[in-house]
Amino acid sequence: MKCTKCKGSAILELRRHNAAFCAPDFVAFFKNQVREAIRKYRMFSHDERVLVAVSGGKDSLALWDVLIDEGYDTTGLYLDLGIFDYSVESKARCEAFATSRGVPLVISRVADEVGAPVPVIKQVTRRPPCSGCGLSKRYLMNKAAQDQGIAVVATGHNLDDEAATLFGSVMHWQTDALPRQSPALASTHPKLVRRVKPLYRLSERETAAYAFVRKIDYIVDECPFAKGATSITHKETLNRMEEASPGAKHNFLFGFLEKARPAFERIDGVTLNECTRCGQVTSGTVCAFCKLSDQVKRAG
Amino acid sequence: MKCTKCKGSAILELRRHNAAFCAPDFVAFFKNQVREAIRKYRMFSHDERVLVAVSGGKDSLALWDVLIDEGYDTTGLYLDLGIFDYSVESKARCEAFATSRGVPLVISRVADEVGAPVPVIKQVTRRPPCSGCGLSKRYLMNKAAQDQGIAVVATGHNLDDEAATLFGSVMHWQTDALPRQSPALASTHPKLVRRVKPLYRLSERETAAYAFVRKIDYIVDECPFAKGATSITHKETLNRMEEASPGAKHNFLFGFLEKARPAFERIDGVTLNECTRCGQVTSGTVCAFCKLSDQVKRAG
Repeated sequence: MKCTKCKGSAILELRRHNAAFCAPDFVAFFKNQVREAIRKYRMFSHDERVLVAVSGGKDSLALWDVLIDEGYDTTGLYLDLGIFDYSVESKARCEAFATSRGVPLVISRVADEVGAPVPVIKQVTRRPPCSGCGLSKRYLMNKAAQDQGIAVVATGHNLDDEAATLFGSVMHWQTDALPRQSPALASTHPKLVRRVKPLYRLSERETAAYAFVRKIDYIVDECPFAKGATSITHKETLNRMEEASPGAKHNFLFGFLEKARPAFERIDGVTLNECTRCGQVTSGTVCAFCKLSDQVKRAG
Repeated sequence: MKCTKCKGSAILELRRHNAAFCAPDFVAFFKNQVREAIRKYRMFSHDERVLVAVSGGKDSLALWDVLIDEGYDTTGLYLDLGIFDYSVESKARCEAFATSRGVPLVISRVADEVGAPVPVIKQVTRRPPCSGCGLSKRYLMNKAAQDQGIAVVATGHNLDDEAATLFGSVMHWQTDALPRQSPALASTHPKLVRRVKPLYRLSERETAAYAFVRKIDYIVDECPFAKGATSITHKETLNRMEEASPGAKHNFLFGFLEKARPAFERIDGVTLNECTRCGQVTSGTVCAFCKLSDQVKRAG
């Protein structure tokens, strides 16, 4: 297998692009895709600071690596979920990465903010395990960005993540979620920072290859609570379709963004208020995060 | 397993409805679903004639059976595709059914209308096998209805068929096809008859059970050209999802119809013209059917 660009020996075939690359040309390809994502959705500029949410996994560390290399002014944000060894090890990977690159890392502990770590939240609430965790993460990312005076948070969501989320929303026609599915969500309130996903054009396999080539030390284990999550089932379904027809995931996600998403954008947006308890943004009176914290505190 | 209605012995469990039925109560359930479909989409009334497109398979013969039983004034339409023994046998099933019920059956031969049977069309055109066949069927159904002076054609498409078609359209975000996906398509031109699918609420398994209970002699074999069709792959994907989560297909199709389809309906419809060759409706100058016939004649 030869590199499509230099005709040298290829290390990776990308069937959906009908291409294969050697290590240096793959890194160039990868960076180009990130550049294209940032350009197309005007995600951020070199004049502003970017908060990069890192979990210690391949995607978010690969993202941070590219952004540093591209000369962006980045700060890492690690949210310590308190999930036993998984959190201890993933935090260590983020700290080691930040030290080796000489970039700042902010750490926020879910246990401090919510009153208990994710395993306790999971037991207290009757929500599916990933639900309370995701809610807390979105809230704390936004809060950390405000605390740091940073206007944009970048996350490591890749093509597989985005296609699986879209697939779930479409199978249930969650018309509230569909317009929010985008590589870039603008700030719609002074207390809501911009959220962007610069890896949305790159597959899980590609971020893994990038992390490998760039010798990034990341945590390979999945979160122990992810087992049985519907997002994993959706990924398996999409992987089967991709296998039969390379580009299926890409076409599904990109077709949605280009052709269908506009149809779901509401003319009337949701009214945003400030939570009467914490002052953060909510569509109600008390935000979902404060309700979750209350539930955790009551359970004691 | 007990019948949900009479507590007698059940013959069929319907997991997505959290119910089980004995034979008589299943037939009643089946008919209720057809009645609900007709009512909800105002498909047709007892005052008008209905042309029922029958293939000799379980779905279309089950549909015809219910409509006769419900006192509708039906005429069967069999389109002879000329697909070897498959067509010979399926035609015989339709004729036997019509005779036994004392209802009229109209037969239209693709070979007469297009100039060649489906196996030849398949070889001549570079389209996928089901494409030229589907095009011919839609055209000839509409034409036969006009010839008979009937304003509505009913087809045997079931929940699985509709969910699989929707799945295919969604995976490619075919925004032209999405608004046309409906259990009832109104006539939008004097030469275009109404098209309705009274079985859209019933699964393939349910139409098979109905045909079995009602002792309908139908052709079990699939069309020999259907092998490898993407619709079959989509059905397999949906069957896996249904297995894991009963009601998945129903929610996918019904959610679309209720929540998403309106978003895709165009404000400006397509302009419909009359084909300069055959006078039937087309969005262009010469209709796709006439182009297909030409291609067949040129090759012939």
